[in-house]
Amino acid sequence: MAGLACYIWHWMAIRPHLDATAETPLYRQLRDYLQGLIESGGLQAGERLPPTRDLAGLLGLNRTTVSAAYDLLSADGWIEARGARGSFVRELAPASGDRRWDSILNPSFARASLPPVSGVIDFTTSRPSAALFPIEEFRKSAADVLASDEIGRLLQLGSPRGYEPLRQYLLDQARRDGTAHPGDDILITSGCQQAVDLLRRTLVRAGDRVLMEEPVYPGLRNSFREAGADITGIPVSEDGIDLDRLGAQLSGARLLIVTPSFQNPTGAAMPASNRAELLRRAAQSGVIVVENDIYSSLRYSGTHQAPLKQADGGVIQMGSFSKIAFPGIRVGWILGPRPVIDRAAEFKQITDLHTDQLSQAILLHFAERGMLEKHRERVILSGREKLRALEQAARRHLAGCQWTLPAGGMNLWLELPQNVDSSALRVSAREAGIDYLPGNYFSVTRPFHNALRLSFIGLEPDQIRRGIEILGQLVRNSGAWRSRETYTPVPALV
Amino acid sequence: MAGLACYIWHWMAIRPHLDATAETPLYRQLRDYLQGLIESGGLQAGERLPPTRDLAGLLGLNRTTVSAAYDLLSADGWIEARGARGSFVRELAPASGDRRWDSILNPSFARASLPPVSGVIDFTTSRPSAALFPIEEFRKSAADVLASDEIGRLLQLGSPRGYEPLRQYLLDQARRDGTAHPGDDILITSGCQQAVDLLRRTLVRAGDRVLMEEPVYPGLRNSFREAGADITGIPVSEDGIDLDRLGAQLSGARLLIVTPSFQNPTGAAMPASNRAELLRRAAQSGVIVVENDIYSSLRYSGTHQAPLKQADGGVIQMGSFSKIAFPGIRVGWILGPRPVIDRAAEFKQITDLHTDQLSQAILLHFAERGMLEKHRERVILSGREKLRALEQAARRHLAGCQWTLPAGGMNLWLELPQNVDSSALRVSAREAGIDYLPGNYFSVTRPFHNALRLSFIGLEPDQIRRGIEILGQLVRNSGAWRSRETYTPVPALV
Repeated sequence: MAGLACYIWHWMAIRPHLDATAETPLYRQLRDYLQGLIESGGLQAGERLPPTRDLAGLLGLNRTTVSAAYDLLSADGWIEARGARGSFVRELAPASGDRRWDSILNPSFARASLPPVSGVIDFTTSRPSAALFPIEEFRKSAADVLASDEIGRLLQLGSPRGYEPLRQYLLDQARRDGTAHPGDDILITSGCQQAVDLLRRTLVRAGDRVLMEEPVYPGLRNSFREAGADITGIPVSEDGIDLDRLGAQLSGARLLIVTPSFQNPTGAAMPASNRAELLRRAAQSGVIVVENDIYSSLRYSGTHQAPLKQADGGVIQMGSFSKIAFPGIRVGWILGPRPVIDRAAEFKQITDLHTDQLSQAILLHFAERGMLEKHRERVILSGREKLRALEQAARRHLAGCQWTLPAGGMNLWLELPQNVDSSALRVSAREAGIDYLPGNYFSVTRPFHNALRLSFIGLEPDQIRRGIEILGQLVRNSGAWRSRETYTPVPALV
Repeated sequence: MAGLACYIWHWMAIRPHLDATAETPLYRQLRDYLQGLIESGGLQAGERLPPTRDLAGLLGLNRTTVSAAYDLLSADGWIEARGARGSFVRELAPASGDRRWDSILNPSFARASLPPVSGVIDFTTSRPSAALFPIEEFRKSAADVLASDEIGRLLQLGSPRGYEPLRQYLLDQARRDGTAHPGDDILITSGCQQAVDLLRRTLVRAGDRVLMEEPVYPGLRNSFREAGADITGIPVSEDGIDLDRLGAQLSGARLLIVTPSFQNPTGAAMPASNRAELLRRAAQSGVIVVENDIYSSLRYSGTHQAPLKQADGGVIQMGSFSKIAFPGIRVGWILGPRPVIDRAAEFKQITDLHTDQLSQAILLHFAERGMLEKHRERVILSGREKLRALEQAARRHLAGCQWTLPAGGMNLWLELPQNVDSSALRVSAREAGIDYLPGNYFSVTRPFHNALRLSFIGLEPDQIRRGIEILGQLVRNSGAWRSRETYTPVPALV
């Protein structure tokens, strides 16, 4: 009895603080707590853990919550089940030793995000629809490449600059369409995200002032934050980056990174006149212009606008296959003046030697035989249909909200009524069957608390319609837009 | 006549300074010079270039040198051939505008290296022999993966942590062999070079003191130099890193990155006792230990030594398929305490989202079906034979030089007689039919002027024998070792 009392006391004394309203589920909070006890020696090697039922009773938790925490601890090797005798703390020394890693590691600037939920209509990710993947054509391209004599060379160490036939193909294409200028060259990257990474390593130092659109894709923002750059977000309207606000910030800035066509997350596209004006102002101030051109070939309506790089050879352009073709195959590129490409290739070598060669060869084969263009046409037709479904559903269900329908790309930026917080609404949204990314995810300095991004292109028209209907109900049920006229903002605490 | 005189004057006045002894070939020097003239306006758009024969005569060059320079300028779009009328400066605005990129770009710390020469016995690259690639087995694995239902998922956006089945396979393997400790996790990277890049982004800040072996693989050194780390090189003997010198540097250091098995470039391997001592000292000083374990499974003689990670869970270990299997397929990993892996995965997302999924799936299939292990056995047998050829040839031809035969890996570190400069000798070596990397390529602070690295594993035994014979002749012809006894070192200037 003394043993039992002591045992219960032991477990009552070390009661964790669990928060049912936190983003992290309870079973993970419990796992983290128990793991912390093992690491700190609060639970000793060989010690028996209470049966799940007992611990659930002590902590007022569901028994499955405790079981799930034990399962994670067991999978990680912290505890082991010994049949009917229960679960015991393992004897092995833990990996982390007594090091407090969290205080040692560099900040990555990634925002904590909710784990994905299954079974919801998922508007969170800017990725193409897997249903459209031309899998048979991809298999054919891959089979041809694998059967070729080239395979031995593809498996051997390659060049930091990329697989030469792909480089030449892209360069020829860029010369034909007037994007590549004399003295330009191309570096193959592992997707466009790596193009961003290499360009900031090549061009930006800590303290440099970098201008980007706001709201902005977090992968851009975080990369420059890691570099210690001084980032200024320039607001975006339906015509793209605000040229007056930009103009006021250009002086002394090092670099402007801009997405003129179908910006992520707003979907905005710059008219030709704005593009010319942007280049004129940037040239005056000597700011380096990096153009993110990964969405421009996904236009569903209106006429093609020439990329910045076409009008001004000094622009550095990033491209990628991922948004049209297969994001799981990581191939992108940088087109720019040779000295920039040469230096970026040196950083590429430090980063990962070179991009996977098999994938480069397969994508080249796929593009050279016209399969990429054929696929793109299908994607455009399907995108048009999705955009129409989105427009109709939004008009019908999203009264009180504001948006501008994009002419291409993957995303719609939605502003809810002023007093609806998109992060708070997301909790109900996930329960109601849809998910999206709240506006603050795309912040540089502005909060965008009532905005959200709907990535619609990976969904089917029926899902889009159903998802927007659910979103509309949530907004209405929040009582927000109906009570909008009477809503009184609370002044900030000063 | 006035026109012709003026034309000749024009071309004589802007005579370039070409250096036939420089690393950059003459035709590239001429190209750079002419391109500079076009960029600066010294040559105007529409201006005709002299016929290759005339310019060759004016500059005292071979005509093919001038032709090669014109070809490069034409390929880059600076000039265009107009049939029999000759070559003209193109009208298009150059990409670089009037920006002086070279003064704008960040330093990459990459050393200028000689371009590869063809037709020589190439000891320069630490890569496996393409002749041993099990191409049919690779084709089989790839075909199975491509035919599977998994392909749709592989082509879609994946996780920054890597392809989950591969992650689990590697983690299970590491648990079985005792390398993975409770609380450890794995992050898939795009080869081991990216593991280095992500770990330095996760763990090192500008000014942090980082310890590494010296001589060292430049990809390690350059990565930490880019981060602004304060790098200290610790000498390497045949038993690996010098523990006394290391001990004197540990205090206040942030991180030690070490290759205990078959270090690149020395081939040195640490005995078990040295490994234990290293861990003891590192633990005392609180220095983070990163173990580069990419060569340990390439042992040709002696007995396997347990990796550092097995004895100490706090160690962070880097691994890769590239050194055993296919370097063109970029898949490596980091095994370490979960907080480190979690943070490194966030940096992975900023770096390139995730590693190519098709390659991950194919390598998993290849490994799961035992093909990787079967291939490794073949590589070991062949490596043993190559090492024997190297040993015999070195004993026979390299009198006056010093080396320690490695028990595994890909490299032999050779010290020439004191007064032979390996960089100077390389010029003759390339003419005589072999190439290698000089010692200073692997410097942190020590010059290693009379050392060089022989990467032997990608060559056939006959090539190794012939190459070492050539190298021996070169060393003897340099008159160095025969005059060694009478060589008087010049004191340093103080």
